[in-house]
Amino acid sequence: MSNISNYKDYLNSHKVRFLDELFELLRIPSVSADSKYKQDVQRAADFVKSKLEAAGVEKVEICETQKHPIVYGEKVVDTSLPTILVYGHYDVQPADPLELWESPPFEPTIRDNRIHARGSCDDKGQFYMHVKAFETLNACGSLPCNVKFMIEGEEEIGSANLASFVKENADKLASDIILISDTSMISMEHPSITAGLKGLCYMEVEVTGPKRDLHSGTYGGAVANPVNVLCDIIARLKDEHQRITIPGFYDKVVELSEDERKKIAEAPFNLEKYKEALDVEDVMGEAGYSTVERTGIRPTLDVNGIWGGYIGEGAKTVLPSKAYAKISMRLVPDQSSKEIEKLFTDYFISLAPKGVKVKVSPHHGGEPVVTPIDSLAFKAAEEAFLEGWGKKPIPTRDGGSIPIVALFDKVLKTKSILMGFGLDKDAIHSPNESYGIDNFYKGIETIILFHKHFARIMKK
Amino acid sequence: MSNISNYKDYLNSHKVRFLDELFELLRIPSVSADSKYKQDVQRAADFVKSKLEAAGVEKVEICETQKHPIVYGEKVVDTSLPTILVYGHYDVQPADPLELWESPPFEPTIRDNRIHARGSCDDKGQFYMHVKAFETLNACGSLPCNVKFMIEGEEEIGSANLASFVKENADKLASDIILISDTSMISMEHPSITAGLKGLCYMEVEVTGPKRDLHSGTYGGAVANPVNVLCDIIARLKDEHQRITIPGFYDKVVELSEDERKKIAEAPFNLEKYKEALDVEDVMGEAGYSTVERTGIRPTLDVNGIWGGYIGEGAKTVLPSKAYAKISMRLVPDQSSKEIEKLFTDYFISLAPKGVKVKVSPHHGGEPVVTPIDSLAFKAAEEAFLEGWGKKPIPTRDGGSIPIVALFDKVLKTKSILMGFGLDKDAIHSPNESYGIDNFYKGIETIILFHKHFARIMKK
Repeated sequence: MSNISNYKDYLNSHKVRFLDELFELLRIPSVSADSKYKQDVQRAADFVKSKLEAAGVEKVEICETQKHPIVYGEKVVDTSLPTILVYGHYDVQPADPLELWESPPFEPTIRDNRIHARGSCDDKGQFYMHVKAFETLNACGSLPCNVKFMIEGEEEIGSANLASFVKENADKLASDIILISDTSMISMEHPSITAGLKGLCYMEVEVTGPKRDLHSGTYGGAVANPVNVLCDIIARLKDEHQRITIPGFYDKVVELSEDERKKIAEAPFNLEKYKEALDVEDVMGEAGYSTVERTGIRPTLDVNGIWGGYIGEGAKTVLPSKAYAKISMRLVPDQSSKEIEKLFTDYFISLAPKGVKVKVSPHHGGEPVVTPIDSLAFKAAEEAFLEGWGKKPIPTRDGGSIPIVALFDKVLKTKSILMGFGLDKDAIHSPNESYGIDNFYKGIETIILFHKHFARIMKK
Repeated sequence: MSNISNYKDYLNSHKVRFLDELFELLRIPSVSADSKYKQDVQRAADFVKSKLEAAGVEKVEICETQKHPIVYGEKVVDTSLPTILVYGHYDVQPADPLELWESPPFEPTIRDNRIHARGSCDDKGQFYMHVKAFETLNACGSLPCNVKFMIEGEEEIGSANLASFVKENADKLASDIILISDTSMISMEHPSITAGLKGLCYMEVEVTGPKRDLHSGTYGGAVANPVNVLCDIIARLKDEHQRITIPGFYDKVVELSEDERKKIAEAPFNLEKYKEALDVEDVMGEAGYSTVERTGIRPTLDVNGIWGGYIGEGAKTVLPSKAYAKISMRLVPDQSSKEIEKLFTDYFISLAPKGVKVKVSPHHGGEPVVTPIDSLAFKAAEEAFLEGWGKKPIPTRDGGSIPIVALFDKVLKTKSILMGFGLDKDAIHSPNESYGIDNFYKGIETIILFHKHFARIMKK
């Protein structure tokens, strides 16, 4: 550990290159959800492999799956030292609606000291900090522990093939802690660590009325209109208190204690600023819970997309044959995505009138998870922030889903630390996604410090 | 009238050309709703002008409007003779969804002795019968009355510019009866004449939640999702009895007498065949009314199109910023489209929660109309069918809307006869629209006979 202080000089002398490399990665449209980007996803995997090798990671391999490959690599300096497994994903969300981007999603552009590009924060910008943190420690000859990398390409579509990979490679993936940067902090003034993630159950529904589009004058009011029916069913998925009406939906939801709710209420949150930032007159959610609770500890249901009938210019008097919707639910402990998938399907079908046929199919799911805040790893993270930011991170519950955290827990029997450096304004999954350049550099430094403190604490 | 019998020989010797000409017209994609077809709409107008002139119509002119032109022409043989004003439209509905067409919508194809093409029945195939009926009578030197043609290009988008044209040219358009073929018959075995048409109120709504697309995990359940809200509002536009809940919506609806309802029930209708043809297990509509009543005499509300959020392949966990729908209502006497427009707008806005902004804008409207079945013109129509089909036509109420019929009534103080030769299976406004070749030829003949009997009856 003699020369770990050198890392600052190294960072300074290479920071421009670090950013150039990230830009190169951001230019690859590795959209995992859309098959027309398959080649680009592959290119992104190749890029990750080459950069891991350049950083000094060993045994780097591209592990093919049934869809998009997983990039694995490791450097074991001393088997007696603790081991960190870094997880991240090089795939990104679709970029549309494209017309809302101020600069092209796959041409990274710097504005207000922020990198604007799809994936800049989620998760290319964040996992790449780990690659550069490793390079720095390795180059300075001060790597204090063993490090393994597992960077996948299917996180945005549910990590369908990661489970089997993890099961088959459990020994290779063995570690003392899994380190993930794929979440956000409250603010630069209030660094935080995500201690809880929601699960996900993502469904697609198709409602078919008459077998062909009809003239809305000749048939309107006499046969079921699939769009009206779909709207009716979706409306009935929540009651007037915005509670989800699916029978059994809340059965396994862990209700938090008053104490826990008090702690959550202590996290800095300004409702007026929140509404202002979204340009909404008021918030809307489950009665009896605060906004922070609704996003953090309560399960939710949202329509992510809906379409049917004539959506072109002007007016067409058609009674459509079909209507579709993508509907997802965010789950909390101890809900199970498989159970909710069945409850949703049964209920949705039960709400359909005789005049229509409905098809309900799952896209992907993931389990909710809560990470311990009393572990040695969390202690190391606190120390890292204390040294790098001058304050301890606040543990928070995030509404996002990283299904694989629960998977690691189950299969690898290893806990994760969600050390994310994103900010709310990064607008992940939205047009004009961005990531602060300071977050990128400060993240690299904090990750380096985590390695240092984790190795120290584990040695004791 | 000496040689009106010649018309049969003339029809026989020119029937192939008649069909060729119609095909030429059907090849022009004159979609009035979509501005990218503006040139084609103009081409269709030019085509109509040239064919009217070729048929012997005089003073043919293309009358420009603020959008698509109206083609007018006339032949006044003797001012002491009765005058027929023929109305029709050369514009067509959009053809999408294109993938459902068995042959390209604008490449007319004959299958099962039927012409398959967009507009084959609605209304190119039908108004063109009048052009050919005129040509025949004129060529045979047996035109028994004066004839005027007014063929417009905006019927499918609400005839926005026809009203002012009719007002400004009331004298020129003066006639004893307006003859329109833009409706359908019950069947070839049961020829019928439409004695009532619905009005139309076509609205577009836009619901805006947060000002940008959001991550459904980070914000889901905490802010209003515009798609969920839109579905909720649409669902609330009807109650569990499928009655429209807009306050005041039914106030001006003329309730039919038991006798009138009995007459309607006498019209041949087979519910099983109806359901089978649409491949629906059951029909669905306003409680307390039959299917024929729901389509014929009751006002209705249908979503014609809906869209919002991610509608691409795969799954995107987005909480969309906006959701849209096209919603139209079919009106019956004595509802007013303007009044309903206001009632709908006020009610829709009143249903929106504080968390969203809504925009409601009208596309176009038209008034419901009932045509007399005791007039001399209707008598002439009965005679024409009696001679041409061997039976009298059944008067029916149609769910479709031809807004201009009410306009003619009001401005020109002239009644219309809706002598349509379409059939239900023509699938107008749908993929694979078609029109029977027999209907086309039989229609021409029946129109010729109408001229004959109308002139005779009016002479008395």
